[in-house]
Amino acid sequence: MLTITESEHRISHMQRRLQESGISGALFMFPIDIYYFSGTRQNAALWMPAEGVPILFVRKSLTRARAESPLVDIRPFPSGKEFPTLFSDEIITIGMTFDVIPVQQFNYYTKVLPGRKFVDISPIIREIRSVKSNAELEKLRSGAEKLCSVFSEVPQFLKAGMRELDLAAEFEYRLRKAGHEGYVRMRAFNQELAGGLAVSKGGTAHGCFDGAVTGKGLSCASPQGASLEIIPENEPILLDYAGVFGGYISDMTRIFVIGSLDTRLQEAFDVAISIQSAIQQAMIPGAIAENLYLLALQMAEKAGLDSCFMGLPGEQSKFVGHGVGLELDEFPILAKGFNMPLQAGQTIAVEPKFVIPGKGVIGIENTFIVSGHGGLKVTDIPDEIVFIKP
Amino acid sequence: MLTITESEHRISHMQRRLQESGISGALFMFPIDIYYFSGTRQNAALWMPAEGVPILFVRKSLTRARAESPLVDIRPFPSGKEFPTLFSDEIITIGMTFDVIPVQQFNYYTKVLPGRKFVDISPIIREIRSVKSNAELEKLRSGAEKLCSVFSEVPQFLKAGMRELDLAAEFEYRLRKAGHEGYVRMRAFNQELAGGLAVSKGGTAHGCFDGAVTGKGLSCASPQGASLEIIPENEPILLDYAGVFGGYISDMTRIFVIGSLDTRLQEAFDVAISIQSAIQQAMIPGAIAENLYLLALQMAEKAGLDSCFMGLPGEQSKFVGHGVGLELDEFPILAKGFNMPLQAGQTIAVEPKFVIPGKGVIGIENTFIVSGHGGLKVTDIPDEIVFIKP
Repeated sequence: MLTITESEHRISHMQRRLQESGISGALFMFPIDIYYFSGTRQNAALWMPAEGVPILFVRKSLTRARAESPLVDIRPFPSGKEFPTLFSDEIITIGMTFDVIPVQQFNYYTKVLPGRKFVDISPIIREIRSVKSNAELEKLRSGAEKLCSVFSEVPQFLKAGMRELDLAAEFEYRLRKAGHEGYVRMRAFNQELAGGLAVSKGGTAHGCFDGAVTGKGLSCASPQGASLEIIPENEPILLDYAGVFGGYISDMTRIFVIGSLDTRLQEAFDVAISIQSAIQQAMIPGAIAENLYLLALQMAEKAGLDSCFMGLPGEQSKFVGHGVGLELDEFPILAKGFNMPLQAGQTIAVEPKFVIPGKGVIGIENTFIVSGHGGLKVTDIPDEIVFIKP
Repeated sequence: MLTITESEHRISHMQRRLQESGISGALFMFPIDIYYFSGTRQNAALWMPAEGVPILFVRKSLTRARAESPLVDIRPFPSGKEFPTLFSDEIITIGMTFDVIPVQQFNYYTKVLPGRKFVDISPIIREIRSVKSNAELEKLRSGAEKLCSVFSEVPQFLKAGMRELDLAAEFEYRLRKAGHEGYVRMRAFNQELAGGLAVSKGGTAHGCFDGAVTGKGLSCASPQGASLEIIPENEPILLDYAGVFGGYISDMTRIFVIGSLDTRLQEAFDVAISIQSAIQQAMIPGAIAENLYLLALQMAEKAGLDSCFMGLPGEQSKFVGHGVGLELDEFPILAKGFNMPLQAGQTIAVEPKFVIPGKGVIGIENTFIVSGHGGLKVTDIPDEIVFIKP
């Protein structure tokens, strides 16, 4: 449960930013943004004036919102007629998250609140949410421990001859029993994730996912993750899963091999480890996110692996890490064009990977906390490839 | 894979509707709408002129789009500068799905395509998609068979003393092994679903989900579905799961009891079955969707159960069924205010349920096809409560 102190701290931070930007208040509609401030994930809207007490308007469930949230002003959702009476004439500029609010919603609110100027505050809320409090880090750490413990069990159930789908089912079963909440939230339009990837050969399929690996998936409608391909010996098997515990996502990847591995793939893996290590050292407050990606790219180039870094040749992703928290694709992104300096307490999944056509997918991923000493590893089990006897 | 014939049929249907509405063309950006016409789910946009050949613009993956789609004109995604050159001056009115397109996307396209009028076509595409072809019904039927077979296995693994979460994990494991694609798509803003519900006592929790039952869930961030509550004897255990196979969703609910059941709950269950039966008979082309909901409500009233029909007293949902297909919340909705006449080939999950405070959740759900003979049951296993010996 969100404490009063933490809720107030988050709200005052947001209000300060609204004041600095000359915005009268923020009208949040996206559930996970509302959860961040209110501690309850309902079908609701949250009005946060730049100064004063926020109001949570709840469609469903008002009872649960009141039971879970430390906010003091929680009301039934107003009708279109009531809405304008709640907003004084001094409220001129209203912030909304244009990145996730559908046009229909936007049109509705601009109609019931005429004469106001609506502005996009998505970069502000995303930046605020990117820096985690101690309570958030505690949730993330304890979730990561559970995710790690399922990764540690993989040698018990991974067998040659099983389908990628069987491996996915075994992994997901254990993750769920450990308390994984089942739904991995993504903010980006057009992206969705069914938990993770359990892939061998299917991992080299072309795909829509904005990541190094999409997976072949089970149909053209769900072209992502595990497929019906049989897992062979002597090839890399990539497990990339996000675990959601208490709402917080940790994300990691490990490589498993039944038998032995092609030297070229082992070399590519070693490059991925070196890249991860260089980024981990550089993950200090003030470091520019883009520079970390460029550093990774440079190291891949030096190793002659730039053409298959972060994706199949010609369809590569232009990042090497992404913020994680209540969503899988939070700020900051270690990506081309992302010039924000890192801040202490940001949590980033770093995932240098190579997709080598005809050979396989290989790489590493861990979730780190940005600190003065570099990245603190949260998904704290060994990085090495796990070799299993055939 | 989507055949050329079926793709052409779907496109010409949409084009006819665009022409009738005086719209120059539709610019689809929402992945599952694009999938419906193109047979490929990529990060893409689909331009469909009211007359002529559609163009699929693909960000990622162009290779996979070309391998999967029967469309003839598939191109790399144009830059902001190239975009306007692709649209002639005769294109005046452009349709978009305002229900799902974020404001940022909308603003981008109105900027690169200046001087055009943008209109909402979400009701049109939702109506078109609601009527399933034979090929779609075949996918839905074969998926429903797999879902049913997992429901039939429940007595093998349901035990008193296990947590709701354990029951969910066991069910989801088998569903996944059967080929469930892992991600249940919902269209409505503010809604999300982690597969389904496995609930006993936790089922009576207040919740955000727009359905009869939300479940207590595992945390305030994920307040839905199974919780850590222990499954007891002599109480209804509700399993409500959506299976996704080949992209198509079938949805069903069954009640299980370890031991015996309170007479009042058994009576409520019998009322749910009567309601389902009345709706099934009335599900013929031309029947008004709202009337089926009113019929259900009337029957619940007559049985003295209206205060707990479709939810906890005071927080009840105002529907008794919803279209299913590529999304869980398709048209038509058997709901207050939904005045569309049913059409043959629409697929609807009918789910009369009661939430009785302090007692439990009980009801039934099956997926039906609208036909001249009434609803054809797709999730074809017995409806009866499954009693398991303690």
